[in-house]
Parts: sequence; structure tokens; C-alpha cells
Amino acid sequence: MSKAIDFYFDIISPYSYIAHKKIKKNNEVLFNYKPILLGGLHKIANITAPAFNYLKMKNMKNDCELVSKKNNIKFKWNEKFPINSLYIMRGYLVLDEDKKKKYLDKFFDAYWRDNIDLSIKDNLNQILKFLDIDPGLFFKDIQNEEIKEELKQLTAKAFNNEVFGAPTFIYDNKIFWGQDRLEYAIEEFLTKNN
Amino acid sequence: MSKAIDFYFDIISPYSYIAHKKIKKNNEVLFNYKPILLGGLHKIANITAPAFNYLKMKNMKNDCELVSKKNNIKFKWNEKFPINSLYIMRGYLVLDEDKKKKYLDKFFDAYWRDNIDLSIKDNLNQILKFLDIDPGLFFKDIQNEEIKEELKQLTAKAFNNEVFGAPTFIYDNKIFWGQDRLEYAIEEFLTKNN
Repeated sequence: MSKAIDFYFDIISPYSYIAHKKIKKNNEVLFNYKPILLGGLHKIANITAPAFNYLKMKNMKNDCELVSKKNNIKFKWNEKFPINSLYIMRGYLVLDEDKKKKYLDKFFDAYWRDNIDLSIKDNLNQILKFLDIDPGLFFKDIQNEEIKEELKQLTAKAFNNEVFGAPTFIYDNKIFWGQDRLEYAIEEFLTKNN
Repeated sequence: MSKAIDFYFDIISPYSYIAHKKIKKNNEVLFNYKPILLGGLHKIANITAPAFNYLKMKNMKNDCELVSKKNNIKFKWNEKFPINSLYIMRGYLVLDEDKKKKYLDKFFDAYWRDNIDLSIKDNLNQILKFLDIDPGLFFKDIQNEEIKEELKQLTAKAFNNEVFGAPTFIYDNKIFWGQDRLEYAIEEFLTKNN
């Protein structure tokens, strides 16, 4: 039996942000963070993201605001949504475990709390510096073929595990899609581990 | 201020069935049932239904089973999902208020509890007879141009109100999509009415 719930996420996904905030409040369960490129996953799974449908997009904004409010999570819809999260998600892969955590917190907050346009390199640089990450090295590392390939493989593997969106939680081969189902995943974990 | 929450539904939608069952357990709030043709709505809204994506479909089945179980709702995934709900939804329009309720309960249960193939005319006939509806008259009535036009108009109006899926709840111009948001709609209603 696995000791953690797999949590598939992309920083571009507002519901991944909400799930991440909920996870941080939870002390009972361990989570295994599984980075993916959501745009790439949608492509493989032949899914049009809500961001590309006017009414779905409008609903998503409103829903994220409602859900955040109910869960006491600070949230602000990013005016530049969606952007390409490729560099940010590749960047996650080049860091060590300790840095990964800080990086995730900072980028999630920058995009989904502070309304920062992460498609502007200056804004990225500023965050990287705050995290004591050298921007020059960072942008060199994320062009590394192995890193490019790793993100592709992680995304392909997620799809092979029947993940088609983010956030997705998997525990004991059971798949739970959407931040609304985090509680179900936690319940599944606690039932199997108590 | 409206005295009821608008509830947009199609009998073909498993989450509409779940919402309907939850609504029946609620005694605090009135609901205004708004029939639509979900397939038609998706077409206008340029949305591919989860039923037409392998992984989304698989997830939906599993999720409906989970949600029903948590809510003590009898549910069985219909092996013949999806079917065209055009006749069934048109049929709802030809009935008087009292019959509408019984019709809805019966057809929802037949499809989402009893796994009955509602694309087979004999099965429809049997249910209609059970409801004391003459099948001959029923099939004549639903070919009526006015009825055809009415369902089209109801669906178009729903879209104009920014409904893009089912179930959708609207109260005081606030839109809540999905059975997961029924509780939010109820809370909105109670806040405004107390």
C-alpha cells in the first residue's frame, strides 16, 4: 500500500492551486507531487480546456472565486490566463526537493493570488531571484534536452495512468479528478491506512 | 427576488439525476424545473460532452457511483449511455404539472437506477402505460411542431442565460454548474431569503 496520495498538478491550473492550498492545511495525509504539462496532457487526451470555451471559462473564474472564498483561500483570477506554463513546469524539475516546495508555493501564489503575468520574463526573473535561483542558470537548465524529455514523459505517464486533467489524485489505483474530489481521496487513504 | 432556484436538467444527464434526488430530500427551497435538450445545448455552446471522450466518460461513471454512494442515492450506470433523449424531453413538455413530476421521477429512475434501455420503444411504452399516458397519443404529441419548437427555444434560452451544461442552477442571476454546486445555490437562496 502506497504511503501517499499522488497529486497531479500544473501551476497554470487554478483548481490545482486551490487543491495545493487545501493540501497544505491537511496534516493527516502525505501527498506525492506529480508535475505535468496540462496543455500537453489535454492534447494527448483530445480535450479542449475550459479556458478555450467562453462560457466554461467565465464559469471557471466565478467558480474558483466561490470555492476559494468558502475554503478561506486567498485567490485572484489572473488577468493573463491562460499562458504557456512550459518553462515554469520544466523549472520545477531542475530543482532539489527543498527548493521545489518553495518554488511551487511562490509561483502558485504569484499567478493565482497576486495576479502576476508570468509570461513576462522580468516577472519570472524577479521571482527566481527571490527564491535564490540564478535566472541565467535556470533558463539554461530548462533548455536541457533531458529536462524537456522528462516533462514530456511525466505527462505521458500521467495519461497512461488515465489522468486527463488537473488536479487529479490517485490513491491505490483509484482516480479522483478535480479539487472537489480531494476529500474523497483523503477518505480513501484514511480508510485503507487506519 | 425570485422564490425558486432554476434547475436546468436533461434526463440523459447522470448528474442531473443525482441533483434531482438531492433536491427531493431538501425541504427548505423551491426549485423551478427547466427542461433542456443537453445534446442541443452542447452543440450551441461548442462543447464536446464527456460521454464522447473515453477517459472523461470512464471517470464520469466512476464519479457518479462514488457521489451517489456518499449521498445514499441508488444509482446504476446505464449500459446504453448515451442515447438520444429528444423524445423523452419533448414528452415532458406535453404533460400537465402533476404528470410532469411523476414522469420525471419514473424516467430518471428507469435510466439511472434500473439500467433500462430507453432507446427501445417497447421500454418507453411500458413506462408510459405505467404512468397512465397513452403511448399512441404521446408519440403523436411529441411530433407536434409547437412542441419541437418549444424544446428548441427552452434550450436556446438556457444558452442565452449562459447555461452550458446540466445540471445548472441559477438563482438571482448567479450561475452554479454541476451537482457539486447545488449546496452553493441553496446557500445563496437561504442567504437572500432569511
